Parts: sequence; structure tokens; C-alpha cells
Amino acid sequence: MMGTRCFAAAIVTFSLMASAAAQAEDTKMQTDMQMVAPALEKYTQGRLLGEVWKRPGLSARDRSIVTLAALIARNQTIEMVFYLNLALDNGVKPREISEIITHLAFYSGWANAMSAVAVAKDVFAARGIGADQLPAASPTLLPLNEAAEADRAARVGQQFGEIAPGVVQYTTDILFRDLWLRPALAPRDRSLVTVSALIASGQVAQIPYHLNRAMDNGLTQPQAAEVITHLAFYVGWPNAMSALPVAKDVFEKRPH
Amino acid sequence: MMGTRCFAAAIVTFSLMASAAAQAEDTKMQTDMQMVAPALEKYTQGRLLGEVWKRPGLSARDRSIVTLAALIARNQTIEMVFYLNLALDNGVKPREISEIITHLAFYSGWANAMSAVAVAKDVFAARGIGADQLPAASPTLLPLNEAAEADRAARVGQQFGEIAPGVVQYTTDILFRDLWLRPALAPRDRSLVTVSALIASGQVAQIPYHLNRAMDNGLTQPQAAEVITHLAFYVGWPNAMSALPVAKDVFEKRPH
Amino acid sequence: MMGTRCFAAAIVTFSLMASAAAQAEDTKMQTDMQMVAPALEKYTQGRLLGEVWKRPGLSARDRSIVTLAALIARNQTIEMVFYLNLALDNGVKPREISEIITHLAFYSGWANAMSAVAVAKDVFAARGIGADQLPAASPTLLPLNEAAEADRAARVGQQFGEIAPGVVQYTTDILFRDLWLRPALAPRDRSLVTVSALIASGQVAQIPYHLNRAMDNGLTQPQAAEVITHLAFYVGWPNAMSALPVAKDVFEKRPH
Repeated sequence: MMGTRCFAAAIVTFSLMASAAAQAEDTKMQTDMQMVAPALEKYTQGRLLGEVWKRPGLSARDRSIVTLAALIARNQTIEMVFYLNLALDNGVKPREISEIITHLAFYSGWANAMSAVAVAKDVFAARGIGADQLPAASPTLLPLNEAAEADRAARVGQQFGEIAPGVVQYTTDILFRDLWLRPALAPRDRSLVTVSALIASGQVAQIPYHLNRAMDNGLTQPQAAEVITHLAFYVGWPNAMSALPVAKDVFEKRPH
Repeated sequence: MMGTRCFAAAIVTFSLMASAAAQAEDTKMQTDMQMVAPALEKYTQGRLLGEVWKRPGLSARDRSIVTLAALIARNQTIEMVFYLNLALDNGVKPREISEIITHLAFYSGWANAMSAVAVAKDVFAARGIGADQLPAASPTLLPLNEAAEADRAARVGQQFGEIAPGVVQYTTDILFRDLWLRPALAPRDRSLVTVSALIASGQVAQIPYHLNRAMDNGLTQPQAAEVITHLAFYVGWPNAMSALPVAKDVFEKRPH
Repeated sequence: MMGTRCFAAAIVTFSLMASAAAQAEDTKMQTDMQMVAPALEKYTQGRLLGEVWKRPGLSARDRSIVTLAALIARNQTIEMVFYLNLALDNGVKPREISEIITHLAFYSGWANAMSAVAVAKDVFAARGIGADQLPAASPTLLPLNEAAEADRAARVGQQFGEIAPGVVQYTTDILFRDLWLRPALAPRDRSLVTVSALIASGQVAQIPYHLNRAMDNGLTQPQAAEVITHLAFYVGWPNAMSALPVAKDVFEKRPH
């Protein structure tokens, strides 16, 4: 149990990092919770916002990216206004949010991205974020690791090229030779978004490839573990518990 | 095929147990269905509300808990007003609904609980349910079965304690030494909520532990089977069919 | 990268097949995307609507059925107005949409169907589609392949009849001796809806039976592969990639 004093302190500390927009959403959610589930408010303020978000294993910026990815992957618009504002407060750039949404069109489905666009549009407008802060539709792409991509393409082509040439071609052309090379979101952050979305939607079969890729892109093992800890709250314990054995297996098989 | 007379009888019988609020929602849904899918209305009134809900294997109160858990786990707010009212009509207490929502924050993800709060707030207000009918944020907890919990914690700690100490610690501290011991929802009902949420979101890997726990907490095998039958309608046949072999395996392995 | 000229051409070509209602939704989505994610707009118009939808492997009508099934299965109402209008423009009949929604009540869960009803009601009203264009609640059913159904029922009954007689009985009585025989949606299209919903919700365990059934009902292997390609965009790459090995296995095991 958490005492009242500690609880109040947690709210204050959290509020310090939040903009007026995030605070207004937070206050509304608190009022609603008091009318239905006082315990949920206690856990939200004391544990989730007051404790989990401050754990040293992952920055507040990374936690914002992970949380946004989870909400978009699960099509949960109700908390998106709060967490979009918090992400901007935590240093996630508008162009990065733009790329996160575009990236998740491919990794979570088009309608998920469209729902996020509808919410982000109003958040951006309220904060005066205009087109000059958004990434170009067709920018100069990052350089490609041709050897690694050729290896990936060969492997997938061998497995599925004959039965589903369409998916295989688009995976190469749009995903790995285009989307992943867009410069406004770092590959490491793009991986963070992808892995978070996979855990958020229970797609364990796709975790090994993307968790390895994330670690190749610079995500450390302790950070990956902290992503799962953070996501336990946002996507539910069962998704976190199902991700753990897969992550463990990836960790153990990587060269040390 | 169901004749008109039998169909009308089903509506009347169902209406007898529903409050004015639930009936108003029911009428609106019927009108909408007539404009798009008359067959769906037939199945809803004749089969689902008129037949499934009356099967003797599970009480209307239990069915309400199972249905609410499924809707919250799947973030489906559109039917929540109707089923929250029906749950209250069927004897589920406001404090139990409050605990179900709080419980599912952890088992389905925080945003799912927040969506449910937003709907329940209005249902509670419309029925004059105030703070005095809600559970305390920090009540005296139920006694813990220390041996069983030590066993669980040791098993999970051995598997994942090294790679993901955060999840493991929170699982012990917040879930099993706090949330599960909150007194306003009986452990058996808490298990019913958990198992329903797992089936509702297709998380078969987590079913064995929680179905065993549910049966340890008093859910009988015929009741568990009836939960799956009920959920087939609310979470779709595929989720029910995927739960069946797992449940069968659990049933067969339990000491008789 | 796609040049501006090509991009504009794609929009025009797409618009030619869309009604005013679909175009209005499309314009709104384009404006929203420009304010948040110009790249997403580029991919939507250039790749998704301008290219994927025109691939020869699957008709625009089939693609509309697949897309609607995915949106309903994932409870994504935000794009449903656009795609319901597009489906009607592409030749999907109101009675077929009515049956798709009813069918998915059973295969995706009741609340998914109810959400779709709420959106379709307004689309139907705006287009003047009345009760005379809807299927009867209890029509004369299509003839049943008694041998195949007896075989299916025996297999499921042997597996689960003892532990879950309720599900097994309803599967026979409501699904295979009623729902699947409703005449307003062809069995091949009903299978297309079912397979799309399974892929859309990541339920790979149920794909083999229903993909085989779909092919027995007339869906060709190239069409099935194209369904997965199309769905990659609408339900996310991970769901498509998880469906591929299962589909490959089904294709290889079918008699040639």
C-alpha cells in the first residue's frame, strides 16, 4: 500500500514534466477514475506514472515512443491525446511522431494509422505544429546495408516468393528499401516502435527477427527488458508474459 | 429457424430481467439491426439473449461478469452501456464492476480500463451510484496463501528473474500480493474475469495457469466449459475453438 | 520514390471508381494526413489505392469484401464509412454486406457486428437502401453437403463433445446447418470473409480448416495469396507474415 503523502508527491513530480494540455487530460482521467475505480487511480498515479515511468532503465522519451506505439497498435484512441502531448513534452519531435504513425500503418494496419492521424491532427493544431515540422513525403533516404538486406530478401524469397510474390516484393520495395530508410526516425527508434507494436498485439512469432534487428540497431538488452516491463502495464500482463520466453531465447542466442 | 411466436416470447422473457436503461439500449440496437441485418437481430434475440443466457450451466450473474470482461479486454465500448446495466440488474455489485475494471487494467492493458471507466462513469451516475458504493483505494487485503505464492514466485523468478527483473518484481508486488487480494471481488470471480479476458484476446499461452487457478478458486469444470460456450458468441468462434484444446488439456491433467 | 505527376494520376484513376460519398471521406482523410503524415498520404494514394487495389490477382469487389471483413474483425469503425461506400461502388450488394456483418458476429464476436451495424445503418440510409434490399431473417437455406458436414461434426464432436457440448452443438446447429447456408452471400464469399477475419485477428490456428474450405468453395490458390498481400496493408505486415507459413502448408498438402 502507498501512503497518501507519497501518493500526492508522485502526482506533483509527474506534473512537473507535463504540459498544460497533458495535465488537463490527466485531471479529467483522475476525476473519471474517482467516480468508478479509486484503486485504479491509485495505481495510475502511484505506480504507473509515479514509479514505472521514472525507472532508470529506459528514458522518458523512449517510454513515450513505446507507449505511443502500443496505443496505435491497439487502436486505443482514448488515451492518445494525453500520451501524444506527453511524448512532445518528453522530447519526441513532431516529425518522429509523424514517422511512428506512418511506420505503424505497415506494422499494425492502415486503419490504426488513420485513427492516430485523426487524434494527432488536433494535438498538433493545438500546439501550433505546422507542415514545416513534418517530414517530407519523399526525402533522401538513409544508406542501406545492402548485404544484410540481400540476406533478408533471399531468406524470405526462398520461403514465400513462390506462393506469395506480392507480399515478398512489397516487403522489399516498400518496407526495407523505403520505409525503414526514411531519415526522420532513427533506425533504433523505428525498431523500438516495431518491437513494441509486436508485443502490444501478441504477435510473438514476429518478435525474434525484430528484436534481433532492434539490438543490431542499438537497443541494449536491459533496455529491451525494460520495454517489456513498461508494456506490461500498457498492453496487459499476458502479452508481456508471452513475450518473455521469446525475448529470453533471443538474448541467449545472440553472440556475446 | 425460429418461428415468430417463439421469437417474440424470447424478447419478452429477456426484458423481464432488464432495467429501463438496459431495455432502452436493447431497443435502439434492435432498430439499428432491422435497418442493416435482420438476421443478426433474429440471432441476437432468439439465440443469444433468449437462449444462451438462460442455459443452466452458468448463472446470469456469472455470464454478466464474463461478458463485461470480454468487452473490456477487447475495448468494445459500443455494447458496454447495455451490458453494464444488465450486469447491475443481474446482481453484480458496483464495487465488483469497479474491481473488474481495475483488475483488467493489469490483465488487458491500462487503456482498456480507462475506456471502461469513461463508459461506467455515466452508467453509475445515471443510476445514482456514488463513491460510498465503491471499494476503497487501499483496503485491508485478503489473507495470502504464502506457500502457493512462494511457489509461483520462485517458478517465475527462476525463468525470468535474471532477464526481466522489473516484470517479475511487479508481478509479485502489485499483482499477487496486492491486486488479487483486494476484497471487493472474490478470488473465484477475479479468476473468472482473468480467464474470460485471456480467451477474449486469444492469449492461449496464458490460459493453463489461470484456468487451473480459477478451478482452484472454485470454478467447476462444467462452468469453465460454459464460459467458453458463452464467449463463443461474444469473442467469436475462432477464439473459443482455440481455447478448447487448451482447456481440455488442463481438465485432463488436474487431479480427479 | 514516386513523382508528383504519377501520384496525381493515381488519385484521379482511383476517384473514377468511387461515389461522391467515398470521395468525400477520401478527401477528408487526405487533408488529415497532410497535417500529420504526408508520407502516409503518399503511400495511401500511390501504393495502396493507386497500385494494390488494381493488381489483377483479385477483383475490386473481392478486395472490398476482404477489406470490410478485416475492418469489422478488428472493430475499426473509422475507415468503415469509406470502405462501405467503396464496396457498394465496387458491386458488393447491400444484402451481401448485411450477411458479411451477420457472419462476422459469429466469427469475430457480437460487438464487432454491432459496431458495424451502427456505421452501415447511416451509409445505407444515405444511399436510400431500404429493407427491401436486405436478406430475410429466415430465408430458405442452401442445400447442405450432408456427408462433409457429418464428417466435420464427427471430428469436432470426438475432440470436444464431452468437455464442451454447448459449443459443439451450436457449431453444428447455428453455424454449419444455418448461417453458412444462408443464400444471400455465396459460400465462396463467406469463406473469403472468414479467412480474411482470421488473418486480420492473428488467429493462425483456425486458418487451415477455413482456407481449405475456402478453396473447396472455389477460391483459387493465387487468389488466396493475393488476399494475404492485400491484407498486409490493412491488418499489418506481422499478421500477413504469420499467415504465410500456414497458407503455404495448406497449399502444399492439398491434392493437386
